[in-house]
Amino acid sequence: MSKYTISTISDELNEELTLKINNKTKPVGSLGKLETIAYKIGRIQQTVNPKLIQPTIAVFAGDHGIAKEGLVNPYPQEVTFQMVMNFISGGAAINVFANQNKISLKIIDAGVNYNFGNIEGLIDSKIDMGTSNYLQTKAMTTEQCEEGLKKGAQIVEEIYQEGCNVIGFGEMGIGNSSSAALLMSIICNIPIDDCVGNGTGVNEEQFQLKLKTLQQAIEKHSSLNQNDPFETLSTFGGFEIAQMCGGMLKAAQLGMLILVDGFISSAAILVAFQMNKQILDYALFTHHSNEQGHTKMLAYMNASPIINMDMRLGEGSGIAVAYPIIKAACTFLNEMASFDTAEVSNKV
Amino acid sequence: MSKYTISTISDELNEELTLKINNKTKPVGSLGKLETIAYKIGRIQQTVNPKLIQPTIAVFAGDHGIAKEGLVNPYPQEVTFQMVMNFISGGAAINVFANQNKISLKIIDAGVNYNFGNIEGLIDSKIDMGTSNYLQTKAMTTEQCEEGLKKGAQIVEEIYQEGCNVIGFGEMGIGNSSSAALLMSIICNIPIDDCVGNGTGVNEEQFQLKLKTLQQAIEKHSSLNQNDPFETLSTFGGFEIAQMCGGMLKAAQLGMLILVDGFISSAAILVAFQMNKQILDYALFTHHSNEQGHTKMLAYMNASPIINMDMRLGEGSGIAVAYPIIKAACTFLNEMASFDTAEVSNKV
Repeated sequence: MSKYTISTISDELNEELTLKINNKTKPVGSLGKLETIAYKIGRIQQTVNPKLIQPTIAVFAGDHGIAKEGLVNPYPQEVTFQMVMNFISGGAAINVFANQNKISLKIIDAGVNYNFGNIEGLIDSKIDMGTSNYLQTKAMTTEQCEEGLKKGAQIVEEIYQEGCNVIGFGEMGIGNSSSAALLMSIICNIPIDDCVGNGTGVNEEQFQLKLKTLQQAIEKHSSLNQNDPFETLSTFGGFEIAQMCGGMLKAAQLGMLILVDGFISSAAILVAFQMNKQILDYALFTHHSNEQGHTKMLAYMNASPIINMDMRLGEGSGIAVAYPIIKAACTFLNEMASFDTAEVSNKV
Repeated sequence: MSKYTISTISDELNEELTLKINNKTKPVGSLGKLETIAYKIGRIQQTVNPKLIQPTIAVFAGDHGIAKEGLVNPYPQEVTFQMVMNFISGGAAINVFANQNKISLKIIDAGVNYNFGNIEGLIDSKIDMGTSNYLQTKAMTTEQCEEGLKKGAQIVEEIYQEGCNVIGFGEMGIGNSSSAALLMSIICNIPIDDCVGNGTGVNEEQFQLKLKTLQQAIEKHSSLNQNDPFETLSTFGGFEIAQMCGGMLKAAQLGMLILVDGFISSAAILVAFQMNKQILDYALFTHHSNEQGHTKMLAYMNASPIINMDMRLGEGSGIAVAYPIIKAACTFLNEMASFDTAEVSNKV
């Protein structure tokens, strides 16, 4: 497991950070979660003047064998590649939010069931034309899963080399809320019924079919070792989830700030969390999804997202919308006056 | 009451707005509250292409007679003027957040107990050197309260004339969480115990003193007509709250989008709400304050703020931090591709 080693964050600056936060011209604690975020970023960057440099959201897209059957999703599988094309041409939600908040986007083909050829703006990180159907076999072979972790790490390494120190993980993949639910059920040891939700919007009948399908998938792989995150990931994961997981581990190793999106992005860090709990020291959860399983998954990681806009879109949309709040945490820490310089009286 | 007339918003565009929102390349409803916000702003502006122009936060500052006694607040009264000076010199939380998100700030002396003279960047709207102590008499005379509503309206009218169509209301005033609690208790008919909170940060002993003081204030004015918002405002309000209230009513009359901050800003719109319920059609509540009374006050108005960052600072800080999310609602409505133009398959 040495390849998943993550440095423990030093406590050396804790006191200085607290002092700087408390000496700002405001009642102690009155900026609430912004103070917690500022403290966390200061610790990650080991400075009392943290900066968010070249913020980037990496959107990993992949297809799922299960989705071909229409058993878990109301949208046809080709929506994955169509949405990738939409990302490339700038018309999706993540494009317009990232653009508004000056966040760079990287669109990654982690394993979409479509031959894109050589398209400008698309990073080719394809493992295969979609995973296998986990009702029949493991979604990924051991080699594919290893490749996924490795390719995700490489992509993050490249983004880091370009100068970025804060990276968000978004995704696109018809059927991937089912993968996320299965990963959650195994890793958190929570019945699949409590992990399945509406995804992008199934009706009641479709929901029952989705639930039944995922129950069958769990039964099919009942010999799975739930203490082995790699085995769980290869059994139920998607290529995009594997690459996100590998990318998140690499980001933590590089000391970057990791921004987690909604249900599927959280499932990726859940797998990474089982590999190395320290990853959470580097992560901020940005959005509490409307997907029903997210609440319990977050509780398992003791995570409390920044906003809750009842969104359930993925793509990294929650990250992009919440990003200015994260920036505000750095802004107040760097730019606000302190009680002494501003000549404001403190509490009597 | 004709001066508080607010136009009913036309339903004419409702269907077109819904159609435009639903035809964006995302599952229906998947942008959650962003969709609700976009719809609301579209209705207010009566367009399917809403724009936020010259966003402005007006910060009204005023002093409170009660605060001189140290009965309700741990900070000395002079912190109000010191913080106004901090706003002017750009070092406060609201300055750095507004600056980050490109929001104009207007700092208004609504009645601070300090002679500022002629300072650049400060709008002189002073009614008096702080209100009277409501343990002895009404906080404002009838004339002062009328003047407050009028001056607030004038300030908003001027900001509107400059081209602004979205205005936030922030405040500063040592002791004003007590005013807000009293207004809430009378208007919502909720026992004062459920309305009082820690304000900027009292300890348990100070809290008990604050509560006892406010109970005395309620008893002192037990003959108050709780169906008369003007009388309630003049009895317990502050100059800054009266000006915010008048400004909010004017903003609604002008068809502007009103952004409400935390507990005290909400108390101002609560008074306006009792004068004319339609004001809420023009308002977005930006931040759910950590101040304990806020939850019930919001429930009374059936209001659900955009974010909850556990902040309790006032100044309009919640507005400034949440603003990019409001902007994101307009961004997706204006800039995202639709299913037909993007050639993305819709649900099967």
